[in-house]
Amino acid sequence: MKIFLSLLFFGIAAGGFAQGNISTEVSSILEFQQYDRAIHIMAMLLLGFGFLMVFVKNYGRSALTATFLLVSVALPLYLVGSTLIHGDGSKVEIQRLILAEFGAASLLIAAGALLGRIKMHQYLILGILFVPAYMLNEWVILDNGLGLLKSGFADTGGSIVIHAFGALFGVGAAISLTSSKAIDTPITSDDSSDRFSMIGSMVLWIFWPSFCAALVPAEAIPMTVINVFLALCGSTLVTYLLSVWIRGKISIADIANAALAGGVAIGATCDHAGHLTALLIGLIAGAISTTGFAVLQEKQKKLLKAVDTCGVSNLHGLPGLFGGLVAIFVVPGLSAGAELTGIAVTIIIALGLGLFSGKVISLFGRRVEAYSDAEEFADVEVE
Amino acid sequence: MKIFLSLLFFGIAAGGFAQGNISTEVSSILEFQQYDRAIHIMAMLLLGFGFLMVFVKNYGRSALTATFLLVSVALPLYLVGSTLIHGDGSKVEIQRLILAEFGAASLLIAAGALLGRIKMHQYLILGILFVPAYMLNEWVILDNGLGLLKSGFADTGGSIVIHAFGALFGVGAAISLTSSKAIDTPITSDDSSDRFSMIGSMVLWIFWPSFCAALVPAEAIPMTVINVFLALCGSTLVTYLLSVWIRGKISIADIANAALAGGVAIGATCDHAGHLTALLIGLIAGAISTTGFAVLQEKQKKLLKAVDTCGVSNLHGLPGLFGGLVAIFVVPGLSAGAELTGIAVTIIIALGLGLFSGKVISLFGRRVEAYSDAEEFADVEVE
Amino acid sequence: MKIFLSLLFFGIAAGGFAQGNISTEVSSILEFQQYDRAIHIMAMLLLGFGFLMVFVKNYGRSALTATFLLVSVALPLYLVGSTLIHGDGSKVEIQRLILAEFGAASLLIAAGALLGRIKMHQYLILGILFVPAYMLNEWVILDNGLGLLKSGFADTGGSIVIHAFGALFGVGAAISLTSSKAIDTPITSDDSSDRFSMIGSMVLWIFWPSFCAALVPAEAIPMTVINVFLALCGSTLVTYLLSVWIRGKISIADIANAALAGGVAIGATCDHAGHLTALLIGLIAGAISTTGFAVLQEKQKKLLKAVDTCGVSNLHGLPGLFGGLVAIFVVPGLSAGAELTGIAVTIIIALGLGLFSGKVISLFGRRVEAYSDAEEFADVEVE
Repeated sequence: MKIFLSLLFFGIAAGGFAQGNISTEVSSILEFQQYDRAIHIMAMLLLGFGFLMVFVKNYGRSALTATFLLVSVALPLYLVGSTLIHGDGSKVEIQRLILAEFGAASLLIAAGALLGRIKMHQYLILGILFVPAYMLNEWVILDNGLGLLKSGFADTGGSIVIHAFGALFGVGAAISLTSSKAIDTPITSDDSSDRFSMIGSMVLWIFWPSFCAALVPAEAIPMTVINVFLALCGSTLVTYLLSVWIRGKISIADIANAALAGGVAIGATCDHAGHLTALLIGLIAGAISTTGFAVLQEKQKKLLKAVDTCGVSNLHGLPGLFGGLVAIFVVPGLSAGAELTGIAVTIIIALGLGLFSGKVISLFGRRVEAYSDAEEFADVEVE
Repeated sequence: MKIFLSLLFFGIAAGGFAQGNISTEVSSILEFQQYDRAIHIMAMLLLGFGFLMVFVKNYGRSALTATFLLVSVALPLYLVGSTLIHGDGSKVEIQRLILAEFGAASLLIAAGALLGRIKMHQYLILGILFVPAYMLNEWVILDNGLGLLKSGFADTGGSIVIHAFGALFGVGAAISLTSSKAIDTPITSDDSSDRFSMIGSMVLWIFWPSFCAALVPAEAIPMTVINVFLALCGSTLVTYLLSVWIRGKISIADIANAALAGGVAIGATCDHAGHLTALLIGLIAGAISTTGFAVLQEKQKKLLKAVDTCGVSNLHGLPGLFGGLVAIFVVPGLSAGAELTGIAVTIIIALGLGLFSGKVISLFGRRVEAYSDAEEFADVEVE
Repeated sequence: MKIFLSLLFFGIAAGGFAQGNISTEVSSILEFQQYDRAIHIMAMLLLGFGFLMVFVKNYGRSALTATFLLVSVALPLYLVGSTLIHGDGSKVEIQRLILAEFGAASLLIAAGALLGRIKMHQYLILGILFVPAYMLNEWVILDNGLGLLKSGFADTGGSIVIHAFGALFGVGAAISLTSSKAIDTPITSDDSSDRFSMIGSMVLWIFWPSFCAALVPAEAIPMTVINVFLALCGSTLVTYLLSVWIRGKISIADIANAALAGGVAIGATCDHAGHLTALLIGLIAGAISTTGFAVLQEKQKKLLKAVDTCGVSNLHGLPGLFGGLVAIFVVPGLSAGAELTGIAVTIIIALGLGLFSGKVISLFGRRVEAYSDAEEFADVEVE
């Protein structure tokens, strides 16, 4: 009988042990799969945001170098900051890397508003000022740091805390920084720079599902991914239609930018919306964004006396806010009060610290000429 | 004794339950891995097919916008169609997304034949006409919809149902659509457009294994992947050799296109061929395709009175048909009759509905000038 | 009682069997995850190395075609060679594909030293000579083929056996091959070629963690990945600072190249270094590489009477050697003697066989003009 017992227990124990190992392997596999998404997001940061900004004709070298520097300053800063807050810096996991990449994405959005009007070292200062501001907002909104958001906040793919935050911070800084001379300097593209910017746009479109699904549990991934692609299809189609309708001809800048608005807006609801809702959110976001680029951009410039070089307020700002508001109607059990509070707090922190950061950055130098590589780069062809 | 029994059953049940959970996790992991391939295929659709078509010198903005629109119309259409046929649209899985991407790939191939000779909204009409035609062929061939193919059809990577179908549909439409003026309009590239098209070519090359292995069971993936890469190596090497040999100098258009013919041709046999066979299939496919571009292209134009802008008949048509025929000798247990029937049906549906669709598309407008962004895009430089 | 016994054994056996299946699935999942990294590495080979070399103004078609050919000759050659040595060519696994890709990466580095001064078929000859040399070194160092390295060699990400080996082989061949006319021919870039080369640089940056972690066990992946990104952040930041400091203005060639030096140098210690150490290694490697490009490059040219077109000695050579030496202080239990022996052997084999291969390659033709597509490509614009 004792033999039985021991056999029995051996059987159970062995089973348990083996399962323990396999469970560990399964969870390390699941973590590893986050790794693939982390790489996809890095492609969005460098090739995506980087090349999207190359549309400015004679400023391509600068835009790409700035992208490299902004990412290289944001990742270590965020990881150090996160270690100070959460501890355990000896073993940083993929999840924390992804959160750092989210911060870098938001920073690149902010930089898009200032593109071409600050010097290279000022992008570094922007990064150093931005990351703590971003982490403060993240702490208030997602970690409920001030106790304002007890009933939760829906923003899986970062419509509010990544996109709207970055855009508003950038617009704030642009208000502080834009010189009157820069307001009158035209921002021009050409055949070549437009095609380069489409590389960026397409890279963002392709990998957007990995951005939104980066930290979503495995079982929610298929729904999330398909929602994101449907939202992007919606915004792409409507961007073409509205661009022609408003302007008479298609603007490739509308296509390169507003086609992505569906991705921005679906962020807040990507793991909760039904597929048709996702398509609809994309359609509306694309319409908002295209109208922004085709109609509002010039008005914003005059109203704010500020230039938003890449139009981030129209790609990331308005569609991001729209996406956050839609969550109130789409995410089950979400408190409208909490969502609205979170959005309001984000707007205040982003605009306020953006305005402040712009002032600080302006102390560190001034370009002679906007939107030109030649001032800072060697070996630039003179046209 | 009862204690034993319960312990025993508890042991078994617990084991079974835990394993059940792990099995679920394993299968969700396996589905998730399809997700990575779905993203890779999306890179092929936008960056790959999109930039490959940028070789046309003054038509880059249009080619990229058309790519965006074709993908954005094909994915939702296919998913809606698939829901109507198979039901359960509330929860679309990654597998269905991949099938939709396959349809979009075939559509982009078809569009490559017409590139530059239709207006932007006509690409949308092309997409709306193409997707049902593609799904009809898919239903007849892969679901054995008409009962013609009881003994199966080998086409894992879509040599026939994706590549040859798209190419033949496109050629059919081109026959209906090509104006006599367009036949005489030269299609030119330049230093810049050629380099952009190589981005597309390389993106397709890199991710081709994910296309062919997208829906293959996990254990067949290593063999499939290595077969695809070997076929691509074969076609790349032979393309260079034949391009020099036939033309005297290397044509970068041959390199950008025919180098991919191995990927097209290996599709039908990618999970069955031995590695040497795969290399050989690539070599022959590359030879067929390069000969097509260097010798047949001009003859096709005169014979059919139709322009195939991207030479899809030589990249996707002939190598696809070759790959499908090779399957008869390579795939164990495959019925030659069934394979030939499937190929014949595909040719008939593709050409027939392509001719018809071309007629319909021609009712919706006519370009003033072929291969030029300026007609439809704002802010285009005039040379 | 017998019922119990059988039940009991059935329970254990069933558990074991099911676990066996799951274990198999888990390990096939782990192998599959290597597949994703294999695809990432392929992106580095074609888009990464390929476009990085497009910086040479009128040689873009050639650089990209050469990249295609070098990869297409290296992969099958390595796989055939590996089958001859290790047997079992009927079922090549992903791991062997990754090793073949490593060889192709090293070959592309070597080719970067010769870029623009050999004809297209000579790149093929380079590949045919390089792969056996590379495999010889791999056998001596990693398989301890000569019994020299009994106590192991640290080089997970290939600082020595991939990067330094390729660079030294290339420099060796360049010494044998460079004509005095080529020494005086300037290598120029322009706005367009510089932006294309940044595509390559960014693709390499993005996927570098997959290169270093390609064959690392699952549990070491997070640490490896974050180390690689931190090293790249370090080299990117220091490259900008030093480029401005040494040259007065930023050189985009420094940015495109030296920013990657952190990835080269962290290779040897990527799975052992702490995160701060990784950042520091990146900072130093970036400083070494930028100094190389800004100061040493011209001196090397005069000293060696050889042109290293892409500066591979400054991107892959010096940072690779630095990374290998650092391993002595970072990797626990590593024998300094073994590491130094491995480095010395690599230097001797690479330089020796590089010099020899250069002589052989020079027997197969001579370019009329360096760094120009027009000599070998049809339809090239004449400036």
